[in-house]
Amino acid sequence: MYRVYGDMLSGNCYKIKMLMRFLGIEHEWKHVDILAGETHTPEFLAMNKNAKIPVLQIDEATYLFESNAILNYLAEGSTFLPVSSLEKAKVLEWQFFEQYSHEPYIAVARYINIYLGLPEERKEEYLSKQVGGHKALAIMENQFSQSQFLVGSSPTIADISLYAYTHVANEGGFSLEQYPKITSWLRSMEALPNYVSMARENA
Amino acid sequence: MYRVYGDMLSGNCYKIKMLMRFLGIEHEWKHVDILAGETHTPEFLAMNKNAKIPVLQIDEATYLFESNAILNYLAEGSTFLPVSSLEKAKVLEWQFFEQYSHEPYIAVARYINIYLGLPEERKEEYLSKQVGGHKALAIMENQFSQSQFLVGSSPTIADISLYAYTHVANEGGFSLEQYPKITSWLRSMEALPNYVSMARENA
Repeated sequence: MYRVYGDMLSGNCYKIKMLMRFLGIEHEWKHVDILAGETHTPEFLAMNKNAKIPVLQIDEATYLFESNAILNYLAEGSTFLPVSSLEKAKVLEWQFFEQYSHEPYIAVARYINIYLGLPEERKEEYLSKQVGGHKALAIMENQFSQSQFLVGSSPTIADISLYAYTHVANEGGFSLEQYPKITSWLRSMEALPNYVSMARENA
Repeated sequence: MYRVYGDMLSGNCYKIKMLMRFLGIEHEWKHVDILAGETHTPEFLAMNKNAKIPVLQIDEATYLFESNAILNYLAEGSTFLPVSSLEKAKVLEWQFFEQYSHEPYIAVARYINIYLGLPEERKEEYLSKQVGGHKALAIMENQFSQSQFLVGSSPTIADISLYAYTHVANEGGFSLEQYPKITSWLRSMEALPNYVSMARENA
């Protein structure tokens, strides 16, 4: 049985839980407390030298890291990963966009605000995330005037990847009021069968 | 025929050229000058709202963005993309590692130094990249004590992704002297048939 090391309040970890619930994949969830330094213990570093969650343990000695790599691995053969080469590449395009142009703004601002309690010495950094975050949101809003989900007319792991931090963007100071198409896409994700909300008690 | 919009001195673009040469994929290369604002013209933004290179034009109206998504698309069916689910996921793991834990340190430091000429007001940011960059290099060095290439015993697009900025890490202030295994891996990449070096005249 798969084991996931993660924290449900981390969007990167929550992505894995969402997909596993959508697909009914049995797994054990081990909560990891990043603020308590649990990703920097010798045991954890022996699994993942990069000291990051989530980690998917596949068997005794096989671990997979990077949330979006894990999603691609688990989604293979399901409707959440398209079969055509171009659509599969479009899924990856959105996932790399998420990690480079979305997460470093929206997730990091949320982390500074929610995990760290917006300390004075990081307020300038927090505010500096606004421009990049809104640029990412505008790109998503534009996509939803062309397709119902990010890649075509049904949900894929690209939607899961972008949903995770977008639906809590307000916690990083990003109001979604000016993005009606994003808002309606969020609601359609939440209407999918076996949707699980982002809460530690849902792990 | 494929058209690539890019700059050979950008590691993200150079990755695409490397793979296309390794696989003998015919293409046209359109140089884009980012410092002259050429990714922000109305014509460019009509292709890619994220204002980034590389862009792969597949046909009249089909564009693909994000260097690592493009590599996955072009490598399908070749020896540069493994067939097994786990190995394919491991390739993605390294590519997401590259975009989140390697590029923002090593490539950005190099950009500040080489493209911008290390202006005084960005010197502190430049220096702040050292810790993260060396952490990424140490993780790679460790991998090469376990496998000859990043994923197994033959080169994949993961190696191309990490080669692009690692082989010019010195231009971002990162000495590779303390990483003998990385250095020997760089030489083995350069020994592959149809290897192309990073120079605008090789586009």
